Amino acid sequence: MEGKPQVERWDVFELQLEGPSEGNPFCDVQLAAVFALEHRELRIDGFYDGEGRFLVRFMPDEIGAWRYVTESNCDDLDGVQGGFECVAPGEGNHGPVSVRDGYHFRHADGWPHYSVGTTCYAWAHQRQALRLETLRTLSEAPFNKLRMCVFPKWYPYNQREPELHAFEPDGEGGWDYARLHPAYFQGLDACIEALMGLGIEADLILFHPYDKWGYAEMGAETDAFFLRYVVARFAAYRNVWWSMANEFDLMKKSMTDWDRIGRLVHQLDPYGHPRSIHNCRGFYDHAKAWVTHASVQHSDLERVGEWRHTYGKPVVVDECRYEGDIPRRWGNISARELTHRFWEAFARGGYAGHGETYLKPSGDLWWSHGGVLHGDSPARIAFLREVMEQGEGGGWEPVDGIVPHGYACVAKSEGQYLVYMGLAQPSELDLHLSEDKSWTIELLNPWEMAGKTLHCELSGKQTVKLPGRPYLALRIVAQD
Amino acid sequence: MEGKPQVERWDVFELQLEGPSEGNPFCDVQLAAVFALEHRELRIDGFYDGEGRFLVRFMPDEIGAWRYVTESNCDDLDGVQGGFECVAPGEGNHGPVSVRDGYHFRHADGWPHYSVGTTCYAWAHQRQALRLETLRTLSEAPFNKLRMCVFPKWYPYNQREPELHAFEPDGEGGWDYARLHPAYFQGLDACIEALMGLGIEADLILFHPYDKWGYAEMGAETDAFFLRYVVARFAAYRNVWWSMANEFDLMKKSMTDWDRIGRLVHQLDPYGHPRSIHNCRGFYDHAKAWVTHASVQHSDLERVGEWRHTYGKPVVVDECRYEGDIPRRWGNISARELTHRFWEAFARGGYAGHGETYLKPSGDLWWSHGGVLHGDSPARIAFLREVMEQGEGGGWEPVDGIVPHGYACVAKSEGQYLVYMGLAQPSELDLHLSEDKSWTIELLNPWEMAGKTLHCELSGKQTVKLPGRPYLALRIVAQD
Repeated sequence: MEGKPQVERWDVFELQLEGPSEGNPFCDVQLAAVFALEHRELRIDGFYDGEGRFLVRFMPDEIGAWRYVTESNCDDLDGVQGGFECVAPGEGNHGPVSVRDGYHFRHADGWPHYSVGTTCYAWAHQRQALRLETLRTLSEAPFNKLRMCVFPKWYPYNQREPELHAFEPDGEGGWDYARLHPAYFQGLDACIEALMGLGIEADLILFHPYDKWGYAEMGAETDAFFLRYVVARFAAYRNVWWSMANEFDLMKKSMTDWDRIGRLVHQLDPYGHPRSIHNCRGFYDHAKAWVTHASVQHSDLERVGEWRHTYGKPVVVDECRYEGDIPRRWGNISARELTHRFWEAFARGGYAGHGETYLKPSGDLWWSHGGVLHGDSPARIAFLREVMEQGEGGGWEPVDGIVPHGYACVAKSEGQYLVYMGLAQPSELDLHLSEDKSWTIELLNPWEMAGKTLHCELSGKQTVKLPGRPYLALRIVAQD
Repeated sequence: MEGKPQVERWDVFELQLEGPSEGNPFCDVQLAAVFALEHRELRIDGFYDGEGRFLVRFMPDEIGAWRYVTESNCDDLDGVQGGFECVAPGEGNHGPVSVRDGYHFRHADGWPHYSVGTTCYAWAHQRQALRLETLRTLSEAPFNKLRMCVFPKWYPYNQREPELHAFEPDGEGGWDYARLHPAYFQGLDACIEALMGLGIEADLILFHPYDKWGYAEMGAETDAFFLRYVVARFAAYRNVWWSMANEFDLMKKSMTDWDRIGRLVHQLDPYGHPRSIHNCRGFYDHAKAWVTHASVQHSDLERVGEWRHTYGKPVVVDECRYEGDIPRRWGNISARELTHRFWEAFARGGYAGHGETYLKPSGDLWWSHGGVLHGDSPARIAFLREVMEQGEGGGWEPVDGIVPHGYACVAKSEGQYLVYMGLAQPSELDLHLSEDKSWTIELLNPWEMAGKTLHCELSGKQTVKLPGRPYLALRIVAQD
């Protein structure tokens, strides 16, 4: 007797079955499997992968002996039973990310996720050599989330026809919206898996307006058909996030459409991956129940606190303009400015996102194609990520009372504070430190990626001398 | 027979009369003079200057032989007649400033006033040596407007008791609010006159909250008594502007009080000097009839266009944080940042204001005491002023269509454009130049105070290469 297959907790168990390929298996065949561990059951939708191949993907969230049985309207696929052994996760597998502590994120095993995202909208639709270069770059970059489009992109600097498309041609120059093209989605599988291997969350953008093929205007029924397929196919990857749209307000969908799409994804996803929607101008109402966190496009990071208060959820400023040199103003801020914006968001209890848009002879811009990074902000973002991760505790929460005059200050615990002074260049600053601890004050230079201890063993109300230069931070830590 | 006195157009004609000093001449004696040129008459209030001396000050606005006759309830002061010859203004005398072209300012002779203001709130209440130092500094500085308080100031860094006070003591530790102290106002006369000699507008702040003596809470009747005196005394100085308050919203006055104060000053001032009111948080409604221009405290200069639209009046961001290094965030931005803010305001059709708050051993901070300037922004503001003043025409008005993608662009005429790129660092930019002219494109570096010609004889749609660095501007001028 063969041993049962083993699957790591939060890895993908994939059940592959042979079934009919005639007719339209996407529409005609229903398939699900009920996975059970002791008395707990989860019903997971399957999907058609082409060539008579049907898949059910499942992410087990508990260690133990799982059993399954399939349900289908097709006899070949119905009543198939089996099981697998879910074992402890390997190194680097912390499970899926979800919202914790109101405004922050953690992996399922408790490991904090300090969101440090980047943007490569169309990287999955580029030639293989470029995709591999993107992954090599990411393997050395500080980013732990990547925004990417499920559909291909047509936009200035993005005018290459993708090799594959999401639907089969209808023979009349359009698409058969009842027949998906499995090879297209297999390519996305590979991209998501590769990111998972690098410990990077794949923030999947389900709709976007930068389209010339018709994906942006498929109608409600096709949208739902597409979403069911995408969620059935990708949800078992622990690193998936759902972004209903990029710049939703530039699309020809009503607010009712967006509400329906968001609720549908919420309902379909058995694992509760993070869900949001990204704006161009006005924000979506992120207070709505299906939204797990606010995905924001905005340049004024000083408003992060206001948005936390408005929505009561984590604030991820996925787009705050990109480091680059293109003519468009959303894509030509300096590395210094983007570094400043990351710190500003962090020091107000939120998270900023990176993108890069340098004009290079290759025509590849990181923000869309991936490839290599040319800018100076990623190294600084790596430094910030180290600062975020240092010390015990979870999310850095805004606190008052340590530094007067309204400086942005966050705390990870009662013994760890971080003050970011941004544009301010005080030559001295008052600190109101608690008297029952002894504190070390360190001056951090986010651009130079350096720290310098200013004082040890301070306590109570103190005035500290500072260099009188902008863009500096203070780390204030209680000594043991 | 002696010749009639001669007075320059827009200078002060001062009529001095001897009258009673017993009783309370401030309240008991009414005095005015009717000044006439041909068939035109203006009725000008006089005021008591102490020691039995009564003054009527008048700023003639037309060349010619003016006559006057006084009116008073006091026989000694009633029916006094005379005249003077108003002659052409001397060099540097361009007359009072008023709003022109909707969003800009000009002197009465048509000379444009590009507002480049600074702030020395309490300079007039400092010791004489420091006042003289302030004037020496101003004589070499680029500023053409100075915000200054009529009342003394009590605030952090401002805790010196002034030598003189505006009212006489009441003998019980308070003030006799029916008796002004003429020596106090004579000191202000000298300050305003000195600024006039330097070509600097005196933006007189009539009320402010930084007070420990009671001036901030005198009550409506005393406020009106004070305003009548101040307007009668100072309005004949051509360089006077009226600011009803600094940070009006921090004072214990209602909106009704401010409306009444603004309307009263509007009604009392025979010359229509510029009038506004400065906020801390929320703006006053500058659309109200008595307001001539929006005096704004705000840090986001990208919103200047919005405020122009809202109020339909010139926008002067008198306070956008100061160059300095004090702990408070309104007083510690860098010279680079303040320079950036001046350009940002200018390139959106408005005007920014300067202040400086460096901690120095002397304890004198320019923003309040005057003295010497330590910062690096004034030289850059001088460069900007040169740019503003270059070429024919009046105010720089926002224009669309020359540079796509929403860059801030203003034009002085159809042949002179200025683009400020601010945080953006494009390595190339499209220009849509009219084809019926030949254009020179100059790259300006506001921090280096330098210009470099990039192209001559350009026409039509063009893409120009740029250095890919932030904080640069383009000057685009049609060749003759």
